[in-house]
Amino acid sequence: MNARRIISGAFVLALAVLAPSPVRPSGDEGMYPLSEILKLDLRAKGLAIPPEEIFSPDRPSLVYAIVSVGATGSFVSPNGLFLTNHHVAFSAVQAASTPERDYLTDGFLAGSRAEEIQARGMTARITESFRDVSADVLAAVKPGMPLAERTKAVEKRMKEIVATAEKANPGKRAEVSEMFLGKSYVLFLFTFLKDIRIAYVPPRGIGEFGGETDNWMWPRHTGDFAFLRAYAAPDGSPADFSPKNVPFKPKRFLKVDPAGLAEGDFMFLLGYPGRTYRHYPAAYLAYEEDFRLPYVADWYGRQIDIMEKAGAGDPAAALKLSSRIKGLANTMKNYRGKLKGMKKIGIVAAKAAEEKGLEAFLAADTKRQAAFGDVLAGLGKIYAEMRGRGDAELVLEYLRTNTTLLGFGWTIHEAAIERRKPDLEREASYMDRNWEQTKQRLLLAQRNFDASSDKAILKELLLRALRLEGPNRIAGLEALFPGKPSEAAIEPFLAKAYAETKLADAGMLSDFLGRTPDGMKAANDPFLALAAAIAPATFEVRERQKARKGALDGLFARLSDARELFLGKAFIPDANGTLRLTFGRVKGYSPADAVYNPPFTTLAGVLEKATGEAPFNAPPGLASLRKARDFGRFAHPLLKDIPVCVLYDADTTGGNSGSPVLNARGELVGINFDRTYDATINDYAWSEGYSRSIGVDIRYVLWLTQKFARADFLLEEMGIR
Amino acid sequence: MNARRIISGAFVLALAVLAPSPVRPSGDEGMYPLSEILKLDLRAKGLAIPPEEIFSPDRPSLVYAIVSVGATGSFVSPNGLFLTNHHVAFSAVQAASTPERDYLTDGFLAGSRAEEIQARGMTARITESFRDVSADVLAAVKPGMPLAERTKAVEKRMKEIVATAEKANPGKRAEVSEMFLGKSYVLFLFTFLKDIRIAYVPPRGIGEFGGETDNWMWPRHTGDFAFLRAYAAPDGSPADFSPKNVPFKPKRFLKVDPAGLAEGDFMFLLGYPGRTYRHYPAAYLAYEEDFRLPYVADWYGRQIDIMEKAGAGDPAAALKLSSRIKGLANTMKNYRGKLKGMKKIGIVAAKAAEEKGLEAFLAADTKRQAAFGDVLAGLGKIYAEMRGRGDAELVLEYLRTNTTLLGFGWTIHEAAIERRKPDLEREASYMDRNWEQTKQRLLLAQRNFDASSDKAILKELLLRALRLEGPNRIAGLEALFPGKPSEAAIEPFLAKAYAETKLADAGMLSDFLGRTPDGMKAANDPFLALAAAIAPATFEVRERQKARKGALDGLFARLSDARELFLGKAFIPDANGTLRLTFGRVKGYSPADAVYNPPFTTLAGVLEKATGEAPFNAPPGLASLRKARDFGRFAHPLLKDIPVCVLYDADTTGGNSGSPVLNARGELVGINFDRTYDATINDYAWSEGYSRSIGVDIRYVLWLTQKFARADFLLEEMGIR
Repeated sequence: MNARRIISGAFVLALAVLAPSPVRPSGDEGMYPLSEILKLDLRAKGLAIPPEEIFSPDRPSLVYAIVSVGATGSFVSPNGLFLTNHHVAFSAVQAASTPERDYLTDGFLAGSRAEEIQARGMTARITESFRDVSADVLAAVKPGMPLAERTKAVEKRMKEIVATAEKANPGKRAEVSEMFLGKSYVLFLFTFLKDIRIAYVPPRGIGEFGGETDNWMWPRHTGDFAFLRAYAAPDGSPADFSPKNVPFKPKRFLKVDPAGLAEGDFMFLLGYPGRTYRHYPAAYLAYEEDFRLPYVADWYGRQIDIMEKAGAGDPAAALKLSSRIKGLANTMKNYRGKLKGMKKIGIVAAKAAEEKGLEAFLAADTKRQAAFGDVLAGLGKIYAEMRGRGDAELVLEYLRTNTTLLGFGWTIHEAAIERRKPDLEREASYMDRNWEQTKQRLLLAQRNFDASSDKAILKELLLRALRLEGPNRIAGLEALFPGKPSEAAIEPFLAKAYAETKLADAGMLSDFLGRTPDGMKAANDPFLALAAAIAPATFEVRERQKARKGALDGLFARLSDARELFLGKAFIPDANGTLRLTFGRVKGYSPADAVYNPPFTTLAGVLEKATGEAPFNAPPGLASLRKARDFGRFAHPLLKDIPVCVLYDADTTGGNSGSPVLNARGELVGINFDRTYDATINDYAWSEGYSRSIGVDIRYVLWLTQKFARADFLLEEMGIR
Repeated sequence: MNARRIISGAFVLALAVLAPSPVRPSGDEGMYPLSEILKLDLRAKGLAIPPEEIFSPDRPSLVYAIVSVGATGSFVSPNGLFLTNHHVAFSAVQAASTPERDYLTDGFLAGSRAEEIQARGMTARITESFRDVSADVLAAVKPGMPLAERTKAVEKRMKEIVATAEKANPGKRAEVSEMFLGKSYVLFLFTFLKDIRIAYVPPRGIGEFGGETDNWMWPRHTGDFAFLRAYAAPDGSPADFSPKNVPFKPKRFLKVDPAGLAEGDFMFLLGYPGRTYRHYPAAYLAYEEDFRLPYVADWYGRQIDIMEKAGAGDPAAALKLSSRIKGLANTMKNYRGKLKGMKKIGIVAAKAAEEKGLEAFLAADTKRQAAFGDVLAGLGKIYAEMRGRGDAELVLEYLRTNTTLLGFGWTIHEAAIERRKPDLEREASYMDRNWEQTKQRLLLAQRNFDASSDKAILKELLLRALRLEGPNRIAGLEALFPGKPSEAAIEPFLAKAYAETKLADAGMLSDFLGRTPDGMKAANDPFLALAAAIAPATFEVRERQKARKGALDGLFARLSDARELFLGKAFIPDANGTLRLTFGRVKGYSPADAVYNPPFTTLAGVLEKATGEAPFNAPPGLASLRKARDFGRFAHPLLKDIPVCVLYDADTTGGNSGSPVLNARGELVGINFDRTYDATINDYAWSEGYSRSIGVDIRYVLWLTQKFARADFLLEEMGIR
């Protein structure tokens, strides 16, 4: 189908010309919010059930089976069992593992519910309802407000709406999401589950088969799935982890279809895609391509090197760092893929061409020109300013977020300030409703603390910070480390700090975080001193960012209006972590000249790649099962083999990990977990030629669960016999 | 088609089961000697002309257009113009280049015949006739002869037959080739052309596009072609290079069909494939897999490292070493591909399974058992002995062949011995008929001499030689370098040797080689001393190898008879550098799960890969021509683009480089230049699933020649307008 109703048409057309090997259209750009689902003619696209079955506020439709777990999951039984990706559960599995009892390496199967283990750090949210609150939010903006004040007023109003909603809906969580920047806001209500447990995860040699080598790649052979279970208090209400809790009863769970999909089939998925930038101007894309993506990819690579060095010959450290390395490597490769794609497709030039058209359209009418003529130039100016401040802003951010002990010091420092303020005026993580989770996150990070890599990372960041020039200089740090920046100037401080700090101790950290603001400040730790040294610059950046956001909000709202006039159509908002639907078809693609990749991989392919060594260390059991052709009912009828992964042209991004892949009848037939390397630029643009996402085929999941893990009881719980 | 008439059926069947993704059969194993061509039912396979058009002794058939140039070439005009690969002409182009006038980098086009430049080191042979001389050769073998004597007697008889043939055919070269080891011998007569010139070679960024990265790979985008021209004396007879020479008039030249091939088309090729091992026993394949291939791949990699270090920052040295590096890298990657393939397919086990069947077949009949029962065990014993001596034999070989100055020293040393013997008793390169070429080869090597890498390579080899143990110890070297082997023990000798030697000087080298045997020995050079030190061990190895060959000859001849009985069919001999025909169809393949590679690449693909940096430094002109869609008559009708390379399932090996790819009418439509990575194991086994060879499409050659090089006169010479 060729329909492209609510999208940025001119831009996509420009890209389509440049895209390699276009294929028969069948998918569609678009991550549709709940409010759009019923407006789509999904029956015409291939859906075999009434769209109201997917979403309707007044019945237990499919969306109530979907959970946000950072990424996405979906209930597959009436007893809280849900499916997501192995990589989504990874850090919880890591947290439950020790070198002696290594569930990451060996996998974990609970023989009964009593044996299920806590998935530390995981929570699950179910979207219960939503309501447009744009007018309410924007009423907080007064004409002539200073830009930073505008942002603060909007933030405060959003918090007030949340507080009111949570008061009116006891036990629910509320959140206001910005849909179109500066223009529209939606209030969501969630059921918020806090007791999540691990029922079955395969060994890393299946769940992460191919590792970073195959990550963002097709053909793919990763069994990237995990069975988790949500628990609630005996009365069904959300509760913290407790042995007394009982399996949560979802309003709706998905039926699993063990027949899977065939090539060309219609499919759709539901999930929580994180963030896309398709409505952003060329100036922003250039900032990404020229500055942010290469900076971050390089810095993450550097951190991985440091951590791998720390983990070499130290299995305990390697295990502690594994989840962070995985996350960094994932982003690094994604960014490198984006950079390759942006250059290949000439995405900035294509966007600039669309903007040239828009400018001509505005210039052709004096009223339009007066209303919108300054928007693109205004945006360009802001991104130029942002680029000038980029190094300093990233370094200050990474000082707080990429280090463990300074991260703790910072939180203590900031909490002592924030926690004195009225609740609604605090930064979000210090508000009463979030403070417990903030503390838990820190304590989890403390479990993975590794001094040697933490120190090396902090040293490198301090050097970068001390080398900043002009307006970006950080006076607080220069006072602490006077003279020419050098390792020698920093080393003694760090040696002393890591030796003397009390924050590396879980008990002490917990103790500090439990104190009053004054008590926290009194801790007198070297990392508190360092936090104090970066505080003025950090607060200055934050104020500047709020002012920038205030300016951008106004400009983006007007850009959106101008583009609607220009292109003569409505848009759907960029992904923003809220529940979305996307659809497409099972379809191969041609990533390069004389290469065609069909849309299914097979168990034979797993064994072709298997070397016995990580990341291609498929357990030997797979080879024996395949040799015996012990496929149960799960073989692909044409391939005569177990299908492992499946490719489709639905529109996804990060956060869609774990999204159920659904067939035309709304039954679960796969679990989304990745995109192709070419599709890493989905965040900026979508194309029928290169946008392909990857799911693990439900037949592989079920076959592994039955034949490899011998967990028939899980299949039975899903109604599969 | 499924026909497999004259091949090692059981073995191929065993492999077929294990081969990945089998595809519709259409090609055929087989590199058919001239004697087999008319027995093949080529019309039924798809040939559209009488097979006698390809070969018939009494008419100017297609084989007379084929030249052996180390690899293969084919005449495409009545005036000696022939096509081969860029990589075949590479060392000649390198020899003609200087850093200032770099034809490798920039390409070379002679605007007229007068501007054509000498292709140093190149000769071209045309096979004129052949005759079975097995009985004559084997008559030299007397019962009870010691094994080494047997080999020498066979070698001498072959030389006598050659001498007689050359006397009877003045101006022709003769050669006796062993077809089935120890069993059948064929005398070939050749026209031997010695004045070869370069007419057109594209820039390295076309002719070697993709370099070692893409070598042995598909999809491929290399314009691996070169136009050369053979010259002869004014009377048409072969002659050394001389300005008075005139273009050679071949008996036959190929018509070029600018329409090229389509997917599924029948094709065949003629050429000089070097060596295959399909009739060799499992014991030999295990020797290859376990010892020789890994040893050589590793050592070549080491040499490349040394040479690349020497060439870094020294463009003159880099240019000198480029051809050797290319050759080493080519073999190294080929061997790594073979190793990967051998393991993947389990080739030793498959061969062993065939042999188990053969043994059971023999054991079932006492007469057969008596006649052949000892053959496989006998072969196994020889290869075990060979493995035990392997390190020493390879090191001694590399000391003579992988070093420049010791190589010179060795030739002088050996020539002083050999050139005193009666001509027919000499090692081949010292016979009168070869001596001039041997000297020329040395002088060409002298032009590429680079002291720094030569010394590093010699040092490493000496260390390896001095570390040999037990019966492999080399007494002559231990006397020269007493004590524990170490760099320190060797360094002073080498420093002095490289400082004092006269062999690095072209004039001196030429002078030495021109002297009498006594005069040569009197040179008193440190590299002659080193040659003398390795001489006893080298001669001992040679004697041992001749004895081994004597034993193998008897066993292989009987193995061949036994397998014919067992499999109930005749075989064709392994490739041995003699003229062969192979045929197949244009066909894609699936190298891995969920990957399909169609059989044509395009100019768009060249530009996709082009980065501007070697080896992907396509000249900018290509992009402009493609942008203008200036395709002339050369676009592929379905792909709407210039086809660059083409894939087919004909059976080829090294030596088939430059072979004309011919359509059903016997017209040239491409130039063979490589195989896929999976097909590197063609040398041991052929499979419909993975055996694919790669040619440059004639449409790319002609398009480049016309549009890029603007050499319309070459197209006109080929009759293309």
